[in-house]
Amino acid sequence: MILPKFYCITDRKKFKKPFKEQILYLAKEGIRLFQIREKDLSSEELFYLCKETKEALKGYDVFIFVNDRVDIAYILNLTGVHLPEKSIPIKDIKSKFPDLIVGKSCHSIESAKKAEEEGADYIFYSPIFAVEGKDKPKGLEGLKDVLKNVKIPVYALGGINKQNLQEVLNTGVYGVASIRLFLEEDF
Amino acid sequence: MILPKFYCITDRKKFKKPFKEQILYLAKEGIRLFQIREKDLSSEELFYLCKETKEALKGYDVFIFVNDRVDIAYILNLTGVHLPEKSIPIKDIKSKFPDLIVGKSCHSIESAKKAEEEGADYIFYSPIFAVEGKDKPKGLEGLKDVLKNVKIPVYALGGINKQNLQEVLNTGVYGVASIRLFLEEDF
Repeated sequence: MILPKFYCITDRKKFKKPFKEQILYLAKEGIRLFQIREKDLSSEELFYLCKETKEALKGYDVFIFVNDRVDIAYILNLTGVHLPEKSIPIKDIKSKFPDLIVGKSCHSIESAKKAEEEGADYIFYSPIFAVEGKDKPKGLEGLKDVLKNVKIPVYALGGINKQNLQEVLNTGVYGVASIRLFLEEDF
Repeated sequence: MILPKFYCITDRKKFKKPFKEQILYLAKEGIRLFQIREKDLSSEELFYLCKETKEALKGYDVFIFVNDRVDIAYILNLTGVHLPEKSIPIKDIKSKFPDLIVGKSCHSIESAKKAEEEGADYIFYSPIFAVEGKDKPKGLEGLKDVLKNVKIPVYALGGINKQNLQEVLNTGVYGVASIRLFLEEDF
């Protein structure tokens, strides 16, 4: 499976339009990879949001992940699940759900290497730039370091905007994940 | 599968001993049915708590459920999953995970009937007696009403203690679920 380079993480509280409308707008603009990450929802609300988003995107050739909920990914035949740093072990997920694509959030070279060893299909590496309330930024040098240490696709995440996007891509990183970037005007 | 009559729901903050020690103590006292319900834990913490509890209870013939997380129940081969009122639809769980036993929390006759129709294996009906922060109690008459309306096992939950236990059982209810009851001295 070849994942797209641009990876949109949802946050309906930052969206300018209602959830489905915003996602459809982004799909029309060319985004093909989404992670539904709405941590405050009940299982029921998240299930139906994922289900309705999938239905709304029928006709677009998109990849849809859900944050942390392996069960919802599997029941709805989503592309896969994206795991926060503290989640169910990847090898246990892979052994029971071999068809799910599994991504993992990593914040150190050690956790990136561990995720690769355990069978992650891709990782997020973050934060690249300063983001309020997050760890010390890794910087472009930190990003290059992780790229030397793992072979699976790495998505750079954290503080990426239109101004610094090109220098992030110049590191040779596989792609860029973001909530805000794709919400900027004229992205 | 014949489920036991007494159903212990965990809440480690109310336990008098460390989690595993408390569960083992209860198993030694004769409790054979547990639901691990620790809603503040990360997926990782909950996964390992369930895994370690199952290992600790090896040798006891127990049934172990986990609250809401179908994925954790399936990966760890637990007995099943207990769903809060707002969760993934039972029919979707049953179609993808036919071997999992599925319970559901119900707070009205309508939701009890719906849970049965959708394929729930048992339900909780609550609160029977007054519990701080919960809905208006159903009372023993409310409990009898629900028993007339569903055929699947009903566990009475909410405010049940040693003093009122017998009158609850006298309604003909299948069993009693509780956090506190089994922590009382000389239960």
